[in-house]
Amino acid sequence: MQVYLNGRYIDHSEAMIPVDDRGFLFADGVYEVVRIYGGRAFLMQPHMRRLRAGLAALHIEGDVEDSLTDVAERLIRDNGVDGDGTIYIQVTRGVAPRRHAFPDPAVSPSVYVFAKPFKQYPDDYFNTGVAAVSVPDTRWTRCDIKSIALLPNVLANQQAHRAGAFEALFVKDGVLIEGSHSNLFGVLDGTLLTYPSCNYILSGITRTLVLEMARELGIPAAEAPIPWDRIDDVEELFLSGTTTEVMPVARVDDRVIGGGTRGPVTTRLQQAYSKRARG
Amino acid sequence: MQVYLNGRYIDHSEAMIPVDDRGFLFADGVYEVVRIYGGRAFLMQPHMRRLRAGLAALHIEGDVEDSLTDVAERLIRDNGVDGDGTIYIQVTRGVAPRRHAFPDPAVSPSVYVFAKPFKQYPDDYFNTGVAAVSVPDTRWTRCDIKSIALLPNVLANQQAHRAGAFEALFVKDGVLIEGSHSNLFGVLDGTLLTYPSCNYILSGITRTLVLEMARELGIPAAEAPIPWDRIDDVEELFLSGTTTEVMPVARVDDRVIGGGTRGPVTTRLQQAYSKRARG
Repeated sequence: MQVYLNGRYIDHSEAMIPVDDRGFLFADGVYEVVRIYGGRAFLMQPHMRRLRAGLAALHIEGDVEDSLTDVAERLIRDNGVDGDGTIYIQVTRGVAPRRHAFPDPAVSPSVYVFAKPFKQYPDDYFNTGVAAVSVPDTRWTRCDIKSIALLPNVLANQQAHRAGAFEALFVKDGVLIEGSHSNLFGVLDGTLLTYPSCNYILSGITRTLVLEMARELGIPAAEAPIPWDRIDDVEELFLSGTTTEVMPVARVDDRVIGGGTRGPVTTRLQQAYSKRARG
Repeated sequence: MQVYLNGRYIDHSEAMIPVDDRGFLFADGVYEVVRIYGGRAFLMQPHMRRLRAGLAALHIEGDVEDSLTDVAERLIRDNGVDGDGTIYIQVTRGVAPRRHAFPDPAVSPSVYVFAKPFKQYPDDYFNTGVAAVSVPDTRWTRCDIKSIALLPNVLANQQAHRAGAFEALFVKDGVLIEGSHSNLFGVLDGTLLTYPSCNYILSGITRTLVLEMARELGIPAAEAPIPWDRIDDVEELFLSGTTTEVMPVARVDDRVIGGGTRGPVTTRLQQAYSKRARG
């Protein structure tokens, strides 16, 4: 596989970074995962906007993101990703002797990009739903930045994995927040709910699309949290994300959600998503 | 400079890690900084115990830490660090294709170690004290793990740096917690206070030593938080840490602390520290 690293197209096996990269020492960087359908990047522009916002939040300077669309297209072509795939983009503050404060003067950011085929999750996941576990939200309070400081997400996701579940759902102050690598939607009292866009969640590109599709379909929706103590009243629950798409959750811990399978609102949104993504 | 990377002693300029290292992609690892005085590692054993605890908390398997004392000694020798210095040790979960859950089967952890001379901070810092800024504590709730997910610490430290201050002090729920790379002590109503050892702080090796020295010196001490709204009543304030040692804080934001210089409790603890460290 050819990957892009700091201006060069090289084989993945040769893609190495210095130990002094601040991504390695401090998790000082951001990333994006973009979906490829039929060999074409899906929603590249919103992903680039979010990347730009993340770089600005971390005060990482440089016009690194300007060329990334071209880089992604070349990697898709060179690696023959003509079906489903993903693009991964990571930008860190760059390489400098280890100290917490930013290097002064600033150094060039490190940019790493790959594009590769993505094997879609099994049909069952989308048709009947997946299991999830609830976990305490241990993360920092700037989850709106898509940073590579993902250790809490890793630990939560591993907890799901160990329990044979697909996703871990963060619970904070008595409400469901989002998944370890997806956003969360639920239908409660007939209204589609998702946690408000703020510093406690990563505002997903697919999440925004789901809200947009719900509006178009006339599905009543609100950005409001789902209280954990009302989990037994939740009629439908689903995850949204770049690789997760719109994925029903049939069970959380030992609770069966709604009818224990995909519900009607989820189905309609899946169909709308499929139309957008696959045309 | 010779460094150690995964079993090899190589020049620092050649020390590269694959982009798939989970330290680079997920901040999935821990680290230690150990002080060298007169060419000898100081308090190596407690640092190794903490490293072991961190690896256990992250379920990173392997007896990586057993040989680290030997590795450190060789690096000190080979790099001629015969005065003051630091040893840096970082262990990540290893190299694996990017997915959140742990690689299964497990891969070998990546181990990176360097030892180099450390230029002591200016005498003024220790004699009259440094400035600090207060910042909201944005970090995750497992600060007891010395993880490389240091982005919040970086941002806080940079805020201090920008303000011309030495350290940023995290404030959470109305109390002072600790610094971005040091622990915090204060004297209030004649008692030495420091935030209790729990999941909200990194329990520093120097912090433990300070508490031990206070006991020996008969200084009344308690593990209790310093309320932010009592900052004007604080008689002395100091940082503790591996490179910070025992460093007075003369000012926080626009508040002068105590007499605006090093206080008597800080002085006694500095003297006791110096005796332990430099004999």
